[in-house]
Amino acid sequence: MSLIGLDKYELDTPSLLIDLEIMDRNISAMADYYEGVRVDLRPHVKPHKCPIIAHKQLEAGAIGITCQKLGEAEVMASAGIRNILIANQIANKQKLHRLMGLARHSDVIVGVDSLKNARQISNAASERGIKVNVAMEISGGRCGVEAGEPAVSLARELVKLRGLRFRGIWFHKGLGRYKKVEERRKAHFELLRPVIETKDMIEDAGIDVEIVSTGSTGTYNISPEVPGVTEVQAGKYVFMDRVYKALEGLEPFDYALTILATVISRPSRDRAIIDVGLKSRGSNYGALVLPLVKDMEGVELIRFSAEHGHLKLESPSRELKVGDKLELIPSNCGTTANLYDEYIGVRNDSVEVVWPISARGKAQ
Amino acid sequence: MSLIGLDKYELDTPSLLIDLEIMDRNISAMADYYEGVRVDLRPHVKPHKCPIIAHKQLEAGAIGITCQKLGEAEVMASAGIRNILIANQIANKQKLHRLMGLARHSDVIVGVDSLKNARQISNAASERGIKVNVAMEISGGRCGVEAGEPAVSLARELVKLRGLRFRGIWFHKGLGRYKKVEERRKAHFELLRPVIETKDMIEDAGIDVEIVSTGSTGTYNISPEVPGVTEVQAGKYVFMDRVYKALEGLEPFDYALTILATVISRPSRDRAIIDVGLKSRGSNYGALVLPLVKDMEGVELIRFSAEHGHLKLESPSRELKVGDKLELIPSNCGTTANLYDEYIGVRNDSVEVVWPISARGKAQ
Repeated sequence: MSLIGLDKYELDTPSLLIDLEIMDRNISAMADYYEGVRVDLRPHVKPHKCPIIAHKQLEAGAIGITCQKLGEAEVMASAGIRNILIANQIANKQKLHRLMGLARHSDVIVGVDSLKNARQISNAASERGIKVNVAMEISGGRCGVEAGEPAVSLARELVKLRGLRFRGIWFHKGLGRYKKVEERRKAHFELLRPVIETKDMIEDAGIDVEIVSTGSTGTYNISPEVPGVTEVQAGKYVFMDRVYKALEGLEPFDYALTILATVISRPSRDRAIIDVGLKSRGSNYGALVLPLVKDMEGVELIRFSAEHGHLKLESPSRELKVGDKLELIPSNCGTTANLYDEYIGVRNDSVEVVWPISARGKAQ
Repeated sequence: MSLIGLDKYELDTPSLLIDLEIMDRNISAMADYYEGVRVDLRPHVKPHKCPIIAHKQLEAGAIGITCQKLGEAEVMASAGIRNILIANQIANKQKLHRLMGLARHSDVIVGVDSLKNARQISNAASERGIKVNVAMEISGGRCGVEAGEPAVSLARELVKLRGLRFRGIWFHKGLGRYKKVEERRKAHFELLRPVIETKDMIEDAGIDVEIVSTGSTGTYNISPEVPGVTEVQAGKYVFMDRVYKALEGLEPFDYALTILATVISRPSRDRAIIDVGLKSRGSNYGALVLPLVKDMEGVELIRFSAEHGHLKLESPSRELKVGDKLELIPSNCGTTANLYDEYIGVRNDSVEVVWPISARGKAQ
């Protein structure tokens, strides 16, 4: 049965809803900002994993997309998206074959941080008579080659490899612990200084560095101020979530994603149990942040089990009977979207579209 | 391409592997135990969500299965399984229709804990000229009706409803915090005392209580000692996981589930990055428990991001080069299985079967 036209409260639960108006506003607000700066937007699709949303970002002016997994990139390429940065390492034999297929049908750029890995990619490409675009990851503490001399030496080797086309560098470091804009700006500038110095050193070695890709939603208007940065990988602005809304300076972006839940039991006056548990809401790593209940006062999520959520009620602003529905704002939109097969797009509380989350589970 | 016959290290990653020999042993060990007691086994399928594994449990002697979601029950019924307890409340209108369909094609028993909800189910059943089996949940602190008088009054009402067939009661309470067998036994006996008293009170009121369903893997050999209990809902014994292995007294069951990962970067001598992150490993609620690295010493998972896992190395027992593979033992098998589309069943390190995790994501 098609869900189109239903009131959102007629939907079964748990369902993952997009408020289309808010999402459109988020996409426009980011696009408007990037119209005014010399740096490009290359949105990260990992928070939504959905080709049509990626297309909307491109239509709004993004130059391409960023993926974290080869499987995500394959899904996006098969939806007609060409300019894809895989901001990750493709390290095993099984994936090399897939990368070659992807390279033939898109302009994929793939991360590298070791000569051995780069040689494997180059050899596979040469065998097929093609060239694969690579961008070197500069270490932000996870993967990546150290900034400075180690990166310059690797760049010198990369340009010699016949199967590769060296396109530039990229850098990732989460800055979510800096809630204040000024602290985040300071940290980001400090982190990027050696990255930009490395870019200059590589160019001094006579190697063109066309791309310097970095950043996230949290630094969307900071990264473009850093001379040398060419593109920004913001992603979460599309939906936002509780963790990101806790960051100062992201006021242009609002919550677009919610989980529709049903009250399934009212064991006491101050408690309600809903049908959304750990298997229907993704978490962050480390600190425990729970979803928010949307548009209600006096209702707080206090605990989850696998398929249940526990609400504490204190003079709630509306009654919550068994069978009633409510919406949760996820703490982490990306890990939440990865649990669902489809988005239900809603406008004025009525279902307008159903979109498959085609890259859901594409962790390979 | 079929994966059958491949060596497990030839598989792409992340992949979810079952060691079939260990799983078979776990299923047999539990079945053997239940052969010897007067209580039945009704395995909970939520940790595996896979019909063929449920069938194996039934073939080994289980009397039926337990599901947590209607969507799981539909998947299991469509795989030919008839005797299904949904240990949960079906509380919204959308699900009532589905429940009626399921009731026509299986012997489903569904949880109830309120008269209003029971009336809805009864009315829907009566309209169709059928009867739906119900079992009343006795509160363990989440959903459920209070033990004692409140439960007896609800039972009196339930037997009057024409569309229902009252089958008994069930009770759930997680006891994972009691690591020692004796503490768990004591807690379980204390928790079940009012439940069994309630059963007696209902029978004194002239109402037959055919089913008293409770328990879990952690109390698999404790619940049968409680007079009055008729069946046990153990589930995690099939795979086990790090959280369950931390419980004393579960020695007959061993780790059968692993996540195959690839080392994608070696940023330094004491660190390795793998391609398994939050989106490829499910977590528990609350306390942070990380997966274990299987069959290796000197390697410890220390952190996750969305698609990356961070390993700390201290004289590791084997080398870990970029491209090398290793296996992780999940901290929580149920939330992990819910992230994958298929199990790859391995025997003697060679792929024997690929099984779809058909109830993956069936949270509705």
